[in-house]
Amino acid sequence: MLDQLIAPDIKALIEEGKFEEIAAFIEDRHPTEAAEILSGLPEDDVNLVLEKLPLQTAADIFCELPGSLQSHIAAKLNKNDLAKLVINLSPDDRVDLLKSLPEEQFDSVLPVLAKREREDIKKLASYKEGTAGSIMTTDYIALPADITVREALDKIRLEGPAKESIYTIFVLDEGRHLVGSVRLADLILSHPSKKLRDIMDGQVVAVQAEADQEEATYKFSRYDLVALPVVDTNGNLVGIITHDDALDVIEQERTEDMERFMAISGKHEDTNYLQTSIWTHFSHRVVWLIILAILGLVSGAILQSFESTLMNLMILAFYMPMLADTGGNTGSQSATVVVRALALKEINPKDILKVIWKEAQVGLLLALVLGVLAFLRVYFTSSGASIPESMNIINIGLAIGIALGIQVLSATIIGALLPLIAAAFGLDPALVASPALTTIVDISGLFIYFSTARLLLGI
Amino acid sequence: MLDQLIAPDIKALIEEGKFEEIAAFIEDRHPTEAAEILSGLPEDDVNLVLEKLPLQTAADIFCELPGSLQSHIAAKLNKNDLAKLVINLSPDDRVDLLKSLPEEQFDSVLPVLAKREREDIKKLASYKEGTAGSIMTTDYIALPADITVREALDKIRLEGPAKESIYTIFVLDEGRHLVGSVRLADLILSHPSKKLRDIMDGQVVAVQAEADQEEATYKFSRYDLVALPVVDTNGNLVGIITHDDALDVIEQERTEDMERFMAISGKHEDTNYLQTSIWTHFSHRVVWLIILAILGLVSGAILQSFESTLMNLMILAFYMPMLADTGGNTGSQSATVVVRALALKEINPKDILKVIWKEAQVGLLLALVLGVLAFLRVYFTSSGASIPESMNIINIGLAIGIALGIQVLSATIIGALLPLIAAAFGLDPALVASPALTTIVDISGLFIYFSTARLLLGI
Repeated sequence: MLDQLIAPDIKALIEEGKFEEIAAFIEDRHPTEAAEILSGLPEDDVNLVLEKLPLQTAADIFCELPGSLQSHIAAKLNKNDLAKLVINLSPDDRVDLLKSLPEEQFDSVLPVLAKREREDIKKLASYKEGTAGSIMTTDYIALPADITVREALDKIRLEGPAKESIYTIFVLDEGRHLVGSVRLADLILSHPSKKLRDIMDGQVVAVQAEADQEEATYKFSRYDLVALPVVDTNGNLVGIITHDDALDVIEQERTEDMERFMAISGKHEDTNYLQTSIWTHFSHRVVWLIILAILGLVSGAILQSFESTLMNLMILAFYMPMLADTGGNTGSQSATVVVRALALKEINPKDILKVIWKEAQVGLLLALVLGVLAFLRVYFTSSGASIPESMNIINIGLAIGIALGIQVLSATIIGALLPLIAAAFGLDPALVASPALTTIVDISGLFIYFSTARLLLGI
Repeated sequence: MLDQLIAPDIKALIEEGKFEEIAAFIEDRHPTEAAEILSGLPEDDVNLVLEKLPLQTAADIFCELPGSLQSHIAAKLNKNDLAKLVINLSPDDRVDLLKSLPEEQFDSVLPVLAKREREDIKKLASYKEGTAGSIMTTDYIALPADITVREALDKIRLEGPAKESIYTIFVLDEGRHLVGSVRLADLILSHPSKKLRDIMDGQVVAVQAEADQEEATYKFSRYDLVALPVVDTNGNLVGIITHDDALDVIEQERTEDMERFMAISGKHEDTNYLQTSIWTHFSHRVVWLIILAILGLVSGAILQSFESTLMNLMILAFYMPMLADTGGNTGSQSATVVVRALALKEINPKDILKVIWKEAQVGLLLALVLGVLAFLRVYFTSSGASIPESMNIINIGLAIGIALGIQVLSATIIGALLPLIAAAFGLDPALVASPALTTIVDISGLFIYFSTARLLLGI
């Protein structure tokens, strides 16, 4: 919204080639806002503005730009300018940028960097996408357990200025094992001659570098952390995850969850709706639609096998949409509740019997209410419909109401069951939710509907 | 999971009445874990364990307990014990607890507290649920702009121990207006004789106390904050929101979003799946189901009005589920994408034309692919069906394929349109998503289906 207000002024400045003035205009703004303004400019002009800014300011703004624009800008820099930019980024942003570049550019810039930075980058880049290691930074302060508070503060003053976030200081034993943490505040409030070992919090929460990034974000919210230490298999500290990166991952997973839930495939990375191409939008959606269309063949086959039933009692066709919609809705509800409960670790796949029992009871209540509503609907809206003489509308209404009740109960249970089964097999429970579920519940619903009608009405 | 492993041991201790031992067992654990263990005990025993712990530890664990258990415990305390507990909680937890108590208990405990705490509680309790003010705490450090770094550190050492989170110090002018912020780290790294005014970050991001809590959480992720200051309409600092409370709200909103998306009503507060009663689960789900069932009357009416078309060509009934499912799926996909883009502020309701144009193009591609698939399906699966002599299967397949294409295109556009319209009227876009959308798209789909068939096949 911001960029819409000032975009005309900026456009005028660009046309006149006044990049200095644009730079002056954004220099005092928050990097996030500056980056938003720049994202609105033609891609090639962004570089011209960034060049006019002090290097550190340019780097702060750069890392708030969308990933695609970052790569575009970096691709145009020569290896020395790129190296200058890279060393002004925080270690995790560095690696993200370098990984997005073509391999030859990545390889060309590495030798220009100091050995320490080079090794740091190689190490961070080695963690697989989606692991805790891939979102960590090496920008932390770790101190030995047996120095004093005074010594610690001196070391922080020495190392500090280069470090991005020093809310928490990590405490290591002689073997570089993580043994505790001290909040910067506690350090200031403690007596200068005390040892870190005596003031540290020894109940340190950490995550394995190879663990899923969701494990890391889960620990953030569970333990109210500002920074989460990352350790290797030996318990040695290898990095930290900062609260802002954890929040980014949480937002990204939220999108991923909802999109998976609605049968949208793809990588769900930081893509902007309007900037994503038609083709990408299309290809992310079409995959599941085709799979579901193939699954839908079954519902057609079931209907065909009940052709004579339908022929004898056309009125059944009028209530097919009601049956499908209500089944889909109740199934989606129970699936949603179970998927969230799994995500929040309120339940795990071993609770399957408890969950089914609970959903069966909820489903029964829903079945009663909706079954009665369906009977009333049939009774009051079918006055003009043609009915064979051997039946009356009360019989038909009862059959449809009972079928709907059975459908609601089974859809509620299926909706709870599918995510639990997926989770038990290590799959994302959201994958088998809404659209896949709707199609499955449709198939079982048609079968329930016509079988019940045949049985109760004898057709 | 933790509590399942040790529950048997704890149970044995309870049976023997060894509450001291349970207290010793949990005292050294992280409060979050201790609270989890206690949540597994019979409600009345929790109090007996907490009594055995040092007051501060008990308070730390207490505020990690589920809300319902907190109220249960607090309700059993006399006013003096309750007051002791209350003053050991952080200001925001205090208010949350007191608000959950019966009014007479709230009123009885207030006079026992010191005047300062009493006024603090009254002020915090005055903010409406869902506002930024309702999730803030008054546990912050604010200092005048023209004291030195040395003076600031002295003041922090004096005030600090009572404060929960002092990652950021807020800087006020003479009129208590918020003018900047200083990170604790910057304070340590600055020369002791510098003035706060000279080292502070003047681009301070704040939120109005009356603003929606989502506005606050949005600022957290946008500006990578650890603490967000809350100001009144005069720009005076009245509180801060801490990162952990922001994260709680984000998680709560994530559940709320998904549940609203799936037509589950209710308050979406911190309720645990297994602990929520059958009746609550039922009542949260049944509301929308009844509304949707009433909306479904329309689809029945449309079908009835096309009864003669259906009578003439029974084969049309076989493909009704395909039409409904595909329309529901494509509509849900575009709705999901638009709801997320709105939530992330990538688009706003004013972009409606851009969004519709984009979705129309994506919808057209999907319509082509799925229309052709539908034609092939009809062509290859209808060999045994009874068709009037005046038609052939190619005509019928074309009509169904074209109808499905129109349905996909219109469902995609409707799916994008509804959340945008909801947002323009200040409603939550998620409210008009999936199930409501599916029902609407079903209605329009039936109309499209039978109209197209009538028009193209002349029945």
